[in-house]
Amino acid sequence: MKQIANLLFEARMLKDLARSGYAFLGSGKESIAEHSFITAFICFAMAKMDDDISCEKLVTMALIHDIAEARTGDFNYVEKKYSKVDEAKAVSHLIKHISFGNDIKNLIDEFNSGETKEAKLARDADQISLVLELKKLDDTGAKGLEKWFSDVLKRLETDMGKQMAQSIMETRWNEWWMNDGSE
Amino acid sequence: MKQIANLLFEARMLKDLARSGYAFLGSGKESIAEHSFITAFICFAMAKMDDDISCEKLVTMALIHDIAEARTGDFNYVEKKYSKVDEAKAVSHLIKHISFGNDIKNLIDEFNSGETKEAKLARDADQISLVLELKKLDDTGAKGLEKWFSDVLKRLETDMGKQMAQSIMETRWNEWWMNDGSE
Amino acid sequence: MKQIANLLFEARMLKDLARSGYAFLGSGKESIAEHSFITAFICFAMAKMDDDISCEKLVTMALIHDIAEARTGDFNYVEKKYSKVDEAKAVSHLIKHISFGNDIKNLIDEFNSGETKEAKLARDADQISLVLELKKLDDTGAKGLEKWFSDVLKRLETDMGKQMAQSIMETRWNEWWMNDGSE
Amino acid sequence: MKQIANLLFEARMLKDLARSGYAFLGSGKESIAEHSFITAFICFAMAKMDDDISCEKLVTMALIHDIAEARTGDFNYVEKKYSKVDEAKAVSHLIKHISFGNDIKNLIDEFNSGETKEAKLARDADQISLVLELKKLDDTGAKGLEKWFSDVLKRLETDMGKQMAQSIMETRWNEWWMNDGSE
Amino acid sequence: MKQIANLLFEARMLKDLARSGYAFLGSGKESIAEHSFITAFICFAMAKMDDDISCEKLVTMALIHDIAEARTGDFNYVEKKYSKVDEAKAVSHLIKHISFGNDIKNLIDEFNSGETKEAKLARDADQISLVLELKKLDDTGAKGLEKWFSDVLKRLETDMGKQMAQSIMETRWNEWWMNDGSE
Amino acid sequence: MKQIANLLFEARMLKDLARSGYAFLGSGKESIAEHSFITAFICFAMAKMDDDISCEKLVTMALIHDIAEARTGDFNYVEKKYSKVDEAKAVSHLIKHISFGNDIKNLIDEFNSGETKEAKLARDADQISLVLELKKLDDTGAKGLEKWFSDVLKRLETDMGKQMAQSIMETRWNEWWMNDGSE
Repeated sequence: MKQIANLLFEARMLKDLARSGYAFLGSGKESIAEHSFITAFICFAMAKMDDDISCEKLVTMALIHDIAEARTGDFNYVEKKYSKVDEAKAVSHLIKHISFGNDIKNLIDEFNSGETKEAKLARDADQISLVLELKKLDDTGAKGLEKWFSDVLKRLETDMGKQMAQSIMETRWNEWWMNDGSE
Repeated sequence: MKQIANLLFEARMLKDLARSGYAFLGSGKESIAEHSFITAFICFAMAKMDDDISCEKLVTMALIHDIAEARTGDFNYVEKKYSKVDEAKAVSHLIKHISFGNDIKNLIDEFNSGETKEAKLARDADQISLVLELKKLDDTGAKGLEKWFSDVLKRLETDMGKQMAQSIMETRWNEWWMNDGSE
Repeated sequence: MKQIANLLFEARMLKDLARSGYAFLGSGKESIAEHSFITAFICFAMAKMDDDISCEKLVTMALIHDIAEARTGDFNYVEKKYSKVDEAKAVSHLIKHISFGNDIKNLIDEFNSGETKEAKLARDADQISLVLELKKLDDTGAKGLEKWFSDVLKRLETDMGKQMAQSIMETRWNEWWMNDGSE
Repeated sequence: MKQIANLLFEARMLKDLARSGYAFLGSGKESIAEHSFITAFICFAMAKMDDDISCEKLVTMALIHDIAEARTGDFNYVEKKYSKVDEAKAVSHLIKHISFGNDIKNLIDEFNSGETKEAKLARDADQISLVLELKKLDDTGAKGLEKWFSDVLKRLETDMGKQMAQSIMETRWNEWWMNDGSE
Repeated sequence: MKQIANLLFEARMLKDLARSGYAFLGSGKESIAEHSFITAFICFAMAKMDDDISCEKLVTMALIHDIAEARTGDFNYVEKKYSKVDEAKAVSHLIKHISFGNDIKNLIDEFNSGETKEAKLARDADQISLVLELKKLDDTGAKGLEKWFSDVLKRLETDMGKQMAQSIMETRWNEWWMNDGSE
Repeated sequence: MKQIANLLFEARMLKDLARSGYAFLGSGKESIAEHSFITAFICFAMAKMDDDISCEKLVTMALIHDIAEARTGDFNYVEKKYSKVDEAKAVSHLIKHISFGNDIKNLIDEFNSGETKEAKLARDADQISLVLELKKLDDTGAKGLEKWFSDVLKRLETDMGKQMAQSIMETRWNEWWMNDGSE
């Protein structure tokens, strides 16, 4: 159990680490834990809309896809040009004494390969998480987001992801409560 | 898809809402999204340690257990004495136009009833998330946490939850990297 | 005096509690203590402009109108749909051992009833406090405030409150020092 | 009314200005608006405990005692050694076009002179506001507060102020809700 | 060495002190240490573009030009109207037991006199530091900056400073990485 | 000048990037710009205490030693185990269109080689900057700093650096103003 406690404290670190893209965006702020939550939630919704998807695989993959960033840090578009991150090494240390370590490694490998249906969707959810933030920032007054929007939308690969992102672009961030179905 | 976009923006709101207990603790800070992430991660670890647990059910239950707080707010121990929250109403509005709305409702109901194995574990994970924060605060200099520790530990119901919490209490928050298995 | 110390620490808690509306607005931030200060200050100005108003009653009413939120929390427009707050119970606990407890209770009851001249003005000041924030946010770049402005202005009941709000809408937030009468 | 709008925006600025002492304390944080709120609240309690005090005068004096800091800034113990602040000039500019400007000026003058009963109490409340913060910081883990405590307590002049401060020193910051009279 | 330790802690305080102008601007935030860094960096660039400039003098002058603000605080345009700051006294206390105290005093005096080439450039760099912040705020959504831009540009005295500021005005804050020469 | 504007915006980015070690420390916070300021200031003091040191070289080296982190990000002890950062590539892009680009490159190379007297001192100043933060955190209530202190002190190479650090360890962070020589 000692090793599980260590694993949990390591996951907990994601609450204290800010996603590095926002400094370059010039607005907004998000911890890696917050990003992981919303990515997993998007995947939950995806899985519920298509019975051919393994909900368990998709959601857990999203939940842990950035776990190695507790050790490596989060790299944005610019930073990636100058660093070679050995995520595999970080994962291997992270799972060393964990009985279900291979499950973690396999999910991360599948995510990174991007070949299975679930991996493609999880990767799209990773991007859609950013679309949600950008749309909220755009609706509330931030400027200079055009290139960010166009770049993130281009990275989407699945039909479901593209439709979801398209729909987010057409929805104001506060419609859910401004027109909340309570009447 | 419009209704899914609304649902995602609603989940996204959990990033902007602070858990209300920390003001009363006098140290620390956490968004509901961060709490939901770590609770789901704890459940992921729990599910991987016992094959009789439905991983899908446990993790998704944890992931969405506080989703209604986007509408109701988060209530701490003191606030609960003075408010009667109609979480069921919030959930019913939230799922109104969502095709898989009943899946959300059923998971939340199961969590709240606390009768199934998964519900008991998810509820313990909800508490263990707080144990992790308290332990980190204690290790880094906060005072006055004794009553908080004893209260949260008393609320645990499962053997696995109790062992996990016990192990966290015996582990320094930074052991995972101070002694990180990299050598 | 012990009970007075407790009362002061309870009022002090309003410094640590953020007003919940700003997360839904998407910009700005304010503690309940800050809101209470500016509401009381607005009431001070109101009282000084009309001799028929009891300055003492109006200002103290504004100063303590949200004191029960230390126990209940602050509820925004959305949250109010799902919670039934027993403010009276909170007040009764708060004043239990306070010699002048009834004075507190009476002021809050008068504020909530909204029938006396002072109560109507204090309730308008409560709204005008928000107008000031919205105007500052609007002047400095926030977007999406139209509905907020129109809703808050509609809630005003007194002539003095309406004129004050109108004047705020026509004044830039920084005119007071940009053109500060120092020359 | 234009001039009243300007006055309100000027008072509003106190929400955006941090009290300068906390950087030197090394812990804690407070806006001038928050400090003004709690000072006025302390005065409200003082007035209610002694019928010979003018509640209106005491509370309004506390509420506006730092209003000129919107123009001058807040000066801590160290900064005061190197600056000569012309508060009177700031007040004269602030009240220039305000019909009740002399009421503001008179209250501030009375506060600064510290001769009347209400002025002495308001000045003590100004210090007690700091005692509350120091006690909370002490209870939650801050170190190095001894000199601050002894300095602030020495500045108290009235019996009521001294008793109140003494009682705060003997009360934990969270007793009010840990033992909240709700049972 | 004890006195050097004290001097370093005094310089360190500039990290904890916010520049006071931003509250009046209504957007942005900056510590005095951050301002001192960028001012010194601008001076480094200036010195490298003109061999007739003493790089050592210019950069060290910029680095320490606000050191006395650890004792006096930072005064913005409004605050300066109401305070007479005795910076010389602050400097004299600061350098009292420092062997190279006169070097500090001389650099600050030269900066304040604004007569030498290096002093003029350092003073321009002080303003250009603000231009950089304003331009970033303008590019990312802040409103109401026109008067700030025009005021700061008017204060520039040197040709190099004017050209630099002009060039900043014509450059988007994120061009350096959006078009970063890495391809 | 366009390229200089880009360079300044790049340096400006250091204000928006947090040093990554503090999340692992669990207390404190610092931007790279703040760290660069204090490092350069320490070097200024070092240069003034020994005539054999080139003040210009030492101070400018310290000022720009982390400039490449605008592109690469800041790596703490843990993160360095998993990433291979190509700082040279970042520097080469950064200086591409800068007339004095080689001066930047040479200073960074000299710093990294750590062979010259100035490089050794600048590297010690880089560590002493952390000692100052740790000492302040220790004085104000943070716990768990022992290993951090011992590690940072071990990294010091020069006699001057060691004496400075030793003196900081023996000085309370607020002695400079608690006993400020003003009387």
